[in-house]
Amino acid sequence: MMNTPGIGSTLAIALIHYPVYDKNRQLVATAITNLDLHDIARSSRTFGLDRYYVVTPIKPQQELAERIAHHWREGWGAEYNPKRKSALEIMTVSDNLDDALSDMTQRLGRPPKIVVTGAKGHPGSIRCEAFRELIKDGAGPFLLLFGTGWGMTEEIFARADHVLEPIRGPGEYNHLSVRSAAAIILDRLCGER
Amino acid sequence: MMNTPGIGSTLAIALIHYPVYDKNRQLVATAITNLDLHDIARSSRTFGLDRYYVVTPIKPQQELAERIAHHWREGWGAEYNPKRKSALEIMTVSDNLDDALSDMTQRLGRPPKIVVTGAKGHPGSIRCEAFRELIKDGAGPFLLLFGTGWGMTEEIFARADHVLEPIRGPGEYNHLSVRSAAAIILDRLCGER
Repeated sequence: MMNTPGIGSTLAIALIHYPVYDKNRQLVATAITNLDLHDIARSSRTFGLDRYYVVTPIKPQQELAERIAHHWREGWGAEYNPKRKSALEIMTVSDNLDDALSDMTQRLGRPPKIVVTGAKGHPGSIRCEAFRELIKDGAGPFLLLFGTGWGMTEEIFARADHVLEPIRGPGEYNHLSVRSAAAIILDRLCGER
Repeated sequence: MMNTPGIGSTLAIALIHYPVYDKNRQLVATAITNLDLHDIARSSRTFGLDRYYVVTPIKPQQELAERIAHHWREGWGAEYNPKRKSALEIMTVSDNLDDALSDMTQRLGRPPKIVVTGAKGHPGSIRCEAFRELIKDGAGPFLLLFGTGWGMTEEIFARADHVLEPIRGPGEYNHLSVRSAAAIILDRLCGER
């Protein structure tokens, strides 16, 4: 089953496990979470994205992500649940952000712009609607970054071409899981309207 | 930290572990998934919902859900992560759909209408935008049901006052996790516009 090319075809997503902050704002590499791989792959596939990069420099963590993906792509899981296979086929494990950017440049023939998401407000950030128009107008390709732990480092924000406004409900509480935040933002950018 | 009352204050969500179908359309009770509790509680809290019901008739599964909630509400987790505490405080474990409906009736003084979600199309289903208007216009309260496994049974659909249209991307693939689907639908219904 192939997706028809939508506006997501020049958009990819990256889940950043390093460099991120921990609770005490120390620089850390966070651990792979099984359901981050599945949920974000399924959301990316549903909204027609080009690729989903899982970014970690830790070798045993890379091996873990590859082992999970292998189970569903080629192992017993592929036959048990072909839809899971189809989702995890768009996942690539990368050492670092630059490797993900290079891979995307090679795939699409042009270097992507970096778009950063986060739960905190940021000066000069843009709304999802405005970013949706940029994608539609062919201003991409774009690599959309989501942080783990307590958020991506300032160095990553400094490299961003755009920062997306945080998702808000009616109140002050906005502590979504990264799986939920990614789903909502992909829907706002690529969902049927 | 309190949410200001938004349109979500007459809306609650229920995650149905029974009665649902398995892969071969057999009636089953599915297992509790730790991250379903966390993610859907955090999304519900972010979008100002009144309550999140986890529906399972299996006693050891109810105990598991309560044990996880207790850890974050009152145990070691409450101090470690107060935002998780605040999210899981809106979670209630219920034996069955009728218990969840009764609890909501008692809390809000009026019986809620049942709104069902699913990945398949259904005749007479309504769009999220239309349902958002119904909520705004005070047509509620509403209990919004999400299925696990391979979806809720026909009996549940037959009881629905409304069925929501499935979430669609640009192609045919729409196999989101229940965590992602719930996040997207709550954003469409209660998110800042």
